[in-house]
Amino acid sequence: MTQPLFKKIVIFGVGLIGGSFALALRKAHAVDSVVGFGRSAATLQQAQQLGIIDRIGQDVAAEVGDADLVLLATPVGQMAELMARIAPHLGTHTLITDGGSTKSDVVREAYAQLGSKVAQFVPAHPIAGDEQSGPAAARAGLYLGKKVVLTPLPENTPQAVARVQAAWQACGANIHQLTHGEHDQVFAAVSHLPHLLSFALAHDLAQRDNRELLLSFAASGFRDFTRIAASSPEMWRDICLANREALLKELQIYIAELNQMSTALAAGDAAQLEQTFRTARELRAGWTEK
Amino acid sequence: MTQPLFKKIVIFGVGLIGGSFALALRKAHAVDSVVGFGRSAATLQQAQQLGIIDRIGQDVAAEVGDADLVLLATPVGQMAELMARIAPHLGTHTLITDGGSTKSDVVREAYAQLGSKVAQFVPAHPIAGDEQSGPAAARAGLYLGKKVVLTPLPENTPQAVARVQAAWQACGANIHQLTHGEHDQVFAAVSHLPHLLSFALAHDLAQRDNRELLLSFAASGFRDFTRIAASSPEMWRDICLANREALLKELQIYIAELNQMSTALAAGDAAQLEQTFRTARELRAGWTEK
Repeated sequence: MTQPLFKKIVIFGVGLIGGSFALALRKAHAVDSVVGFGRSAATLQQAQQLGIIDRIGQDVAAEVGDADLVLLATPVGQMAELMARIAPHLGTHTLITDGGSTKSDVVREAYAQLGSKVAQFVPAHPIAGDEQSGPAAARAGLYLGKKVVLTPLPENTPQAVARVQAAWQACGANIHQLTHGEHDQVFAAVSHLPHLLSFALAHDLAQRDNRELLLSFAASGFRDFTRIAASSPEMWRDICLANREALLKELQIYIAELNQMSTALAAGDAAQLEQTFRTARELRAGWTEK
Repeated sequence: MTQPLFKKIVIFGVGLIGGSFALALRKAHAVDSVVGFGRSAATLQQAQQLGIIDRIGQDVAAEVGDADLVLLATPVGQMAELMARIAPHLGTHTLITDGGSTKSDVVREAYAQLGSKVAQFVPAHPIAGDEQSGPAAARAGLYLGKKVVLTPLPENTPQAVARVQAAWQACGANIHQLTHGEHDQVFAAVSHLPHLLSFALAHDLAQRDNRELLLSFAASGFRDFTRIAASSPEMWRDICLANREALLKELQIYIAELNQMSTALAAGDAAQLEQTFRTARELRAGWTEK
């Protein structure tokens, strides 16, 4: 019988990201035993009932000491505290990865909290969002054909990077590498800003006295534009704050873009509006999700 | 044999909106003969080959005189000129409707161009957008279960409104009525603004030197948010200009919303961001397309 890639993994946060990671590794026969930690007993019980985890962890110190791999799959705002809790107990061979949507803040905390053990942490961002969250939304196929961006640290050994990469590949993901700075700039533009803009429109309409009338005539354009406004408020609060600097910069560029459009519209500048829309359409029509 | 609802209809603009109207009425056996006009000979030939129209019209004066129904399905920017061309030749029993996404401007032109025949015009807006356009995108089922908003004029007889309503119902649509002013305010908020915002993001990214890198990491959130940025630049130029006043107002409200978010983000105000996102999520999660 083939050895599994990992004898034991410990997952902090057994929702969409962590739960799907566990289910995918199980399906690939890449892990023997999965232990779960989380803030809510009910959520952990649900995860166990759904076959996501074998056991609900009781003692962090004991569980991370002999784990092959620890996944931090909580909102990014909780990761610093978690790192501080696990740091003293990590086994020498225990690797850590995460599922956070931002990387510079997580890396900064890793240096602060993990100290000399930071080489054991290989940061990752699986690009597999979903407006659903929680264990019930987890599925073995979530990462299949999706991108996972690793942002390795100079301290990581090639072997550590390769082993974390193998874990995400076992989930069916395609692996890319960026620096954590590059990562955060890219995702501010193509993910965090669109989420903020979609939340903003839905919040804007929620303030209106005639919102029921308005919504009764909303159609497919509105549906797709605001799909991501149904995302987790807590998660996106954390992401926005964690990537605040890059996101603020993107937001200012976008507001300037809207002010230009507003000026063109007020002036009745048909040519400029059409050219703007045409450039936009060319970019969008020329893009396909890979 | 049952009489069809209309013996002859004349369609100006045989693309997605006009072509689908014709195909739907044919499928419902609600029309005997469909004549098409348009600016491009190639497009008209394509429409004829696709079975959308029976004949390519040669003489506007002759064709509209004995038509039961005329559909104006061109971009709204071209409707004034069309109305002026058909007005002198309209038969006394000929009704007119349109497929324009804005109504106040179309109604204003109708009074100006149709004069004493304005009672024959029952304005309509079928809510069935698609980023595709042209005769090849037309399909008999486009309006099935979709809303059509009629914005009748005080001059319309109940019989005229009922007959135009019957035409759109024969396409499978559900009929609603608003005044043209209400209509334009509603659609500025739930349709025109989201289109402008989606175009703006795609245009913003198109200006970047690293747009290929950015786009390579764009995922499902970006895909849905920018789907409508692939819409027709010409059509949306016209819609934005036609509904300029209401759209500018919406755009200013939205920019103020973004400035508030920017302030909260810069201040690290986690509670306000979360509350904003939560209100947005509640609105969006509570909405379903009807």
